Amino acid sequence: MTVARVTEISATSPDSFDDAVKQGIARASKTLRGMKSAWVKDQNVEIEDGKVSHYRVNLAITFILED
Amino acid sequence: MTVARVTEISATSPDSFDDAVKQGIARASKTLRGMKSAWVKDQNVEIEDGKVSHYRVNLAITFILED
Amino acid sequence: MTVARVTEISATSPDSFDDAVKQGIARASKTLRGMKSAWVKDQNVEIEDGKVSHYRVNLAITFILED
Amino acid sequence: MTVARVTEISATSPDSFDDAVKQGIARASKTLRGMKSAWVKDQNVEIEDGKVSHYRVNLAITFILED
Amino acid sequence: MTVARVTEISATSPDSFDDAVKQGIARASKTLRGMKSAWVKDQNVEIEDGKVSHYRVNLAITFILED
Amino acid sequence: MTVARVTEISATSPDSFDDAVKQGIARASKTLRGMKSAWVKDQNVEIEDGKVSHYRVNLAITFILED
Amino acid sequence: MTVARVTEISATSPDSFDDAVKQGIARASKTLRGMKSAWVKDQNVEIEDGKVSHYRVNLAITFILED
Amino acid sequence: MTVARVTEISATSPDSFDDAVKQGIARASKTLRGMKSAWVKDQNVEIEDGKVSHYRVNLAITFILED
Amino acid sequence: MTVARVTEISATSPDSFDDAVKQGIARASKTLRGMKSAWVKDQNVEIEDGKVSHYRVNLAITFILED
Amino acid sequence: MTVARVTEISATSPDSFDDAVKQGIARASKTLRGMKSAWVKDQNVEIEDGKVSHYRVNLAITFILED
Amino acid sequence: MTVARVTEISATSPDSFDDAVKQGIARASKTLRGMKSAWVKDQNVEIEDGKVSHYRVNLAITFILED
Amino acid sequence: MTVARVTEISATSPDSFDDAVKQGIARASKTLRGMKSAWVKDQNVEIEDGKVSHYRVNLAITFILED
Repeated sequence: MTVARVTEISATSPDSFDDAVKQGIARASKTLRGMKSAWVKDQNVEIEDGKVSHYRVNLAITFILED
Repeated sequence: MTVARVTEISATSPDSFDDAVKQGIARASKTLRGMKSAWVKDQNVEIEDGKVSHYRVNLAITFILED
Repeated sequence: MTVARVTEISATSPDSFDDAVKQGIARASKTLRGMKSAWVKDQNVEIEDGKVSHYRVNLAITFILED
Repeated sequence: MTVARVTEISATSPDSFDDAVKQGIARASKTLRGMKSAWVKDQNVEIEDGKVSHYRVNLAITFILED
Repeated sequence: MTVARVTEISATSPDSFDDAVKQGIARASKTLRGMKSAWVKDQNVEIEDGKVSHYRVNLAITFILED
Repeated sequence: MTVARVTEISATSPDSFDDAVKQGIARASKTLRGMKSAWVKDQNVEIEDGKVSHYRVNLAITFILED
Repeated sequence: MTVARVTEISATSPDSFDDAVKQGIARASKTLRGMKSAWVKDQNVEIEDGKVSHYRVNLAITFILED
Repeated sequence: MTVARVTEISATSPDSFDDAVKQGIARASKTLRGMKSAWVKDQNVEIEDGKVSHYRVNLAITFILED
Repeated sequence: MTVARVTEISATSPDSFDDAVKQGIARASKTLRGMKSAWVKDQNVEIEDGKVSHYRVNLAITFILED
Repeated sequence: MTVARVTEISATSPDSFDDAVKQGIARASKTLRGMKSAWVKDQNVEIEDGKVSHYRVNLAITFILED
Repeated sequence: MTVARVTEISATSPDSFDDAVKQGIARASKTLRGMKSAWVKDQNVEIEDGKVSHYRVNLAITFILED
Repeated sequence: MTVARVTEISATSPDSFDDAVKQGIARASKTLRGMKSAWVKDQNVEIEDGKVSHYRVNLAITFILED
């Protein structure tokens, strides 16, 4: 039997969507053990002065619960 | 870089949907710091004796994670 | 064992979405016994002369079937 | 034959979701003629100091195109 | 006023989907008080050597927050 | 030409999701003639004392209308 | 105040989707008063000997409830 | 690089869904240049005296923006 | 026991959506045996010179697998 | 690098949804190598004489492509 | 009170999805003032000779309406 | 008349989502002729030791059927 939890985070990067994913996982790894996968629920950008200023992803992260 | 978490709550009020939202945020503010926004995922009512007894909202609350 | 039916209604009010919900449940209670809850499927407004004239909700109402 | 256009707006109010709908329709009526109805696509709130500061609705507004 | 939280878990069983639900709730009850209901968001199976090896469910669990 | 109606019910069983489906169809057969199929729209469980107390299914039942 | 009900039917025609809609509404008009509109939820076809034998539509029909 | 806009219209015809699509595109061509495609988002009918009086389609039209 | 496969095709016709469905099924019948039904997943049109040039449907076709 | 294909099947069993999943995977294993997982897209039942005669599942099966 | 409009564009780039987003925003900034954010609704690619020739994104852009 | 098929694949890359798309199309081109476009249905990542190890995309690929 394996039981995992799913938690949702939102992360931004000034550089790219891929980097936003990496930043989000890196930040989450400070408090979550046993992360296995993450699903990209949503992608959006913030715009300033007619240009993309930040890339944002919403991630549903799955991590294993230890007994 | 900003990383936020998204958590879901369900709140009820005998008075209105708007009040259910307010009650839910007020209760959540006891334990969550840095709440920024909440999305109304679902609205429903409980019915007793042919009348609305409670208004319920499901909220996805976003709050900033401090480093 | 409990078996319930789910039926959908649409109700309007000139005043508010909350009132449209109340009006719909009140009208439904004339013919349905044992209503337990209702889910707000949809919210829209009718507009006349550039102003909201009616608030409308679509409700999926659950009511218990008696044996 | 009737042809209508559908346009999407986002409107906020410090008071309630119903008021946000009214404010949005009022602002849209400055530039759009022939509005008939609006569908509530999304509802969310902004939070400041642990309290709801603004109610926001996204509306898909239908208005008749004149020939 | 009642405020509840909704949390998502993923649980597996070698035997059946029903058993995966039971295992997930049993594991969650170690850390969560006041669980009221759970919604089956997703069902999938793992396959090994052309046969189902595990049944997995994703559950959104609602539990009451005590004041 | 065939015309059918679709009606939605919700049924529970203390034993399993399959049994909830069977109970719901059995109860519906008391009042509906000509049932052909049913679609599982939703599955959820009620929890008491940290254990599953009831399995619930929402079913959309299709039955043929006789002329 | 206006309260309407929404009911779902499924209708087929050997000729076309448009005809299936017409047949379904015609059959429904035998028992329902005050029909206002119908939404096409789903369209599918039955196939026999490599050819379309029937066109089927699922319709959600709205009809006004008289007081 | 190609950039296109997507706009939504709603069009009706007394005759058929296909004709409603044609009517909508014809009306839109009066003001839009460079239309490439349209997606049928929604189909519904208006009913009068128990018969279909109008077929309506909602179309998301894509048209190329010239530099 | 019956096991069927579901495969998706996209078909166009210069004449109508119904004809696009017929053309798609006719083409599919060259390689698929045992087709039973098809679900219309999507409908769109191509536009040339401000007029509909092609009607397109996406179909999910179900066909029985022989043992 | 891993590349997998996803294919959809539909399978029935007179006994249970779990058995329908098992039957579908067993049949698919005759022609597919490298199956890893399957997602339950849809569950429905056929009804005869007021009773469930068959349980049906639609499965999206993922299998690894060998180079 | 803030009222914003939401408009949808589609943009392509031969290089990457991130670049398609940037190109689309850059083109939109020629005619739209006050852009705040954009949501990625859809991502697809065009293929030529078995290779990706263009990356395309559909964006829902929100921009503030000035009074 | 044009008839196309739509098939779904899943592809991974250690580097980026864009690369996963490219890898998937490259692998598919070994067996599929006439690929025209691909839609990104889903994006997720695998995580090892608190870091992204693989980027995965699910693609629905459309390719023309030759007569």
